[in-house]
Amino acid sequence: MKKKKFNFTFSADNGLVDRRCFLKSGFGVGAGMMVAGANASEGKYRDDWMRKPGSGMGESGPSIHESHIKRSNVASQPGTLGSGASRTPLQFLDGIITPSRLHFERHHSGIPDINPQSHRLFIHGLVDRSLSFSMNDLQRYQHVSRIQFLECSGNSGAMIAPNAPQRDVSQIHGLVSCSEWGGIPLNILLDEAGIKPEGKWIVASGADAAVMSRSVPLEKIMDDAIIATHQNGEPIRPSNGYPMRLFLPGWEGNACVKWLKTIKVTSGPSMTKDETSKYSDLRDDGIAELFTFPMGVKSIITSPSPGLDLLERGIYQISGIAWSGSGKIKQVELSADGGKTWAKAELDSHVLSKSLTRFRSAWKWNGTQSSLMSRAIDDQGNIQPNREHWLKGRAINTFYHYNAIQSWSVNSKGKINNVYL
Amino acid sequence: MKKKKFNFTFSADNGLVDRRCFLKSGFGVGAGMMVAGANASEGKYRDDWMRKPGSGMGESGPSIHESHIKRSNVASQPGTLGSGASRTPLQFLDGIITPSRLHFERHHSGIPDINPQSHRLFIHGLVDRSLSFSMNDLQRYQHVSRIQFLECSGNSGAMIAPNAPQRDVSQIHGLVSCSEWGGIPLNILLDEAGIKPEGKWIVASGADAAVMSRSVPLEKIMDDAIIATHQNGEPIRPSNGYPMRLFLPGWEGNACVKWLKTIKVTSGPSMTKDETSKYSDLRDDGIAELFTFPMGVKSIITSPSPGLDLLERGIYQISGIAWSGSGKIKQVELSADGGKTWAKAELDSHVLSKSLTRFRSAWKWNGTQSSLMSRAIDDQGNIQPNREHWLKGRAINTFYHYNAIQSWSVNSKGKINNVYL
Repeated sequence: MKKKKFNFTFSADNGLVDRRCFLKSGFGVGAGMMVAGANASEGKYRDDWMRKPGSGMGESGPSIHESHIKRSNVASQPGTLGSGASRTPLQFLDGIITPSRLHFERHHSGIPDINPQSHRLFIHGLVDRSLSFSMNDLQRYQHVSRIQFLECSGNSGAMIAPNAPQRDVSQIHGLVSCSEWGGIPLNILLDEAGIKPEGKWIVASGADAAVMSRSVPLEKIMDDAIIATHQNGEPIRPSNGYPMRLFLPGWEGNACVKWLKTIKVTSGPSMTKDETSKYSDLRDDGIAELFTFPMGVKSIITSPSPGLDLLERGIYQISGIAWSGSGKIKQVELSADGGKTWAKAELDSHVLSKSLTRFRSAWKWNGTQSSLMSRAIDDQGNIQPNREHWLKGRAINTFYHYNAIQSWSVNSKGKINNVYL
Repeated sequence: MKKKKFNFTFSADNGLVDRRCFLKSGFGVGAGMMVAGANASEGKYRDDWMRKPGSGMGESGPSIHESHIKRSNVASQPGTLGSGASRTPLQFLDGIITPSRLHFERHHSGIPDINPQSHRLFIHGLVDRSLSFSMNDLQRYQHVSRIQFLECSGNSGAMIAPNAPQRDVSQIHGLVSCSEWGGIPLNILLDEAGIKPEGKWIVASGADAAVMSRSVPLEKIMDDAIIATHQNGEPIRPSNGYPMRLFLPGWEGNACVKWLKTIKVTSGPSMTKDETSKYSDLRDDGIAELFTFPMGVKSIITSPSPGLDLLERGIYQISGIAWSGSGKIKQVELSADGGKTWAKAELDSHVLSKSLTRFRSAWKWNGTQSSLMSRAIDDQGNIQPNREHWLKGRAINTFYHYNAIQSWSVNSKGKINNVYL
């Protein structure tokens, strides 16, 4: 039996396959092994697990064969237990939803064990009526839910190092995750409290021991901020702010205050420790930019990537995620030759605003050294910069809001490394 | 301090609040407790959990305060361990995503423990080339991911009982869930195998001890069927078919064969035990309808619902889910007076094809007996029937594909019961 031959057409140099190939009948990767009819016929053999009834129902977790899929770099500051970060294993995930157990974490004084029966949300400051809400009160308000990303502004900060860090996708870029966030539009609660004319900002504070506090312009709060009580259908997990957090679509994760306790309406920013000693961007002229909230347009090829080496020549899926704090992803471009030629990637069908978008392409690796890159463009016209461009104008060691193009080098043995191009 | 008064306008009788109320500044539920400014000011008191650092990072699960949110009716056939069902706790969830740990289960001989290194997918029968694929082979094909529901055709079957069953939403309707399903379009693999002209159906078989097998028309397979390897971003869990299952968007769950092992292309349906002794619809003229795959248009109010009783008069959120196996939800209508008057519900922003859609409305309960109903309409013009209409023409005890309107009665004490109207 002869194996079918496929005629590929290419969209860019070094093997990027034209997406129209997929629309023609007869296109295929050709990875399947041909077998004689008898071997393929069902019932010819039974695997061990078909010879006896399987296990029962209940709270079944992931397969034991996938135990390597867990959060990486779970590390706290020396001498502390919960003041640090853990990262989403992006290279092992597909689609856009991050399972809640794998959502990245960044805590400033650990995860408080909050009793929802005694926790209350307070709204006060420059309002007509100070209000407080129990969880039961909040459940009575009409909620919304939306699938949106959350990214720590320190994500990918390792990429400012002078030499490209040899770590995997999770370790470099794993401080971004995407969930369905559900809760109450904050403008409904603030309308109920009544904002005084001089109210222009709020300061939100958490019920953790660090009392994490961030100032946010009222305009954002009244636009699309929610008091998030649900994540991926169920109540938010303790590591994500149970029983509630502030959620600001597209804005840096730190401003989305977890374990939310108070919203105070103010006339200006409050200059808290969390927005002055940290989470500000120092320029090379010595001036620190504060309140640089929206996350930039960004993309990462998650596969192939370091640790997911290629074993033989042939067709592979290039897959990755793109996102923008300013809107929807309009286009993702791919290069397999280090940026000399580019082709459009395909986007999975749900392209949502301020959400992850999954992009894909087929790539025919011919066994030679190649450099894979992705570049995202959002519907506001923002284009993902290269590293050199990103560094321009920033002070040394300033690492927040890194969103430059990531390049992976594939050597002739199929091994993948992080490179600066 | 005087509490602000709100002027409601209503969209239907018995308290359904007009959605335009939400667009006017000053609308609110009024559930918040007014507090004197001093009480509300931050730092005035610290809860216990703010007095010491919280716990560390890692594999944190749901809050211990939400341990009641688990699958219900975990029950197997007498004498068996894994031949039965467990149900999604819909009344405690929000949005559209079902966390994978809470996805409903229906197994015919338990959950096999499949080693992905030795499992292979076979494609054979009326094809030019029989093929087999390892998991590594499949990873090289270009995937897709989509957020879509999965419903057991036996879902809601309890509603054929002559008296309305007094159970909660999960126990009656919990055999529906919604996930982001990722995998390989099956048409790519079948194109690679080459379908012979006489190939019109396939039969898909699982690697469980029951060798669950279902026939599916080739037209559906080539349209939108996938070999699903991922669920909500991570590899499919064992209870959902790890390492792969057939996924047929909008079609009954049983046909989406789990632990998929073989796809055989055939000239007609194979009349397996699983599609003749079960999963067929007996009519009142004695004829059994076979291969009634698409799930009907349907909706359920998940809150308020039995067990989530109302404690006092006032404004409440009505929230629920709607779906259709034929396309997108176009509209959901709500009644608070047992079907005399109806008003449109609001739909959460992501209205996706063959997915759950979350609907909501505000409702002012005046403390009197009320009957809440929802009715979904899809973009193909299908309208959710009432119970009487649904029963017409079906044999007694035929319970598959039940999709009639659900009515909840609220008595003057706020207690909620299942009623036939």
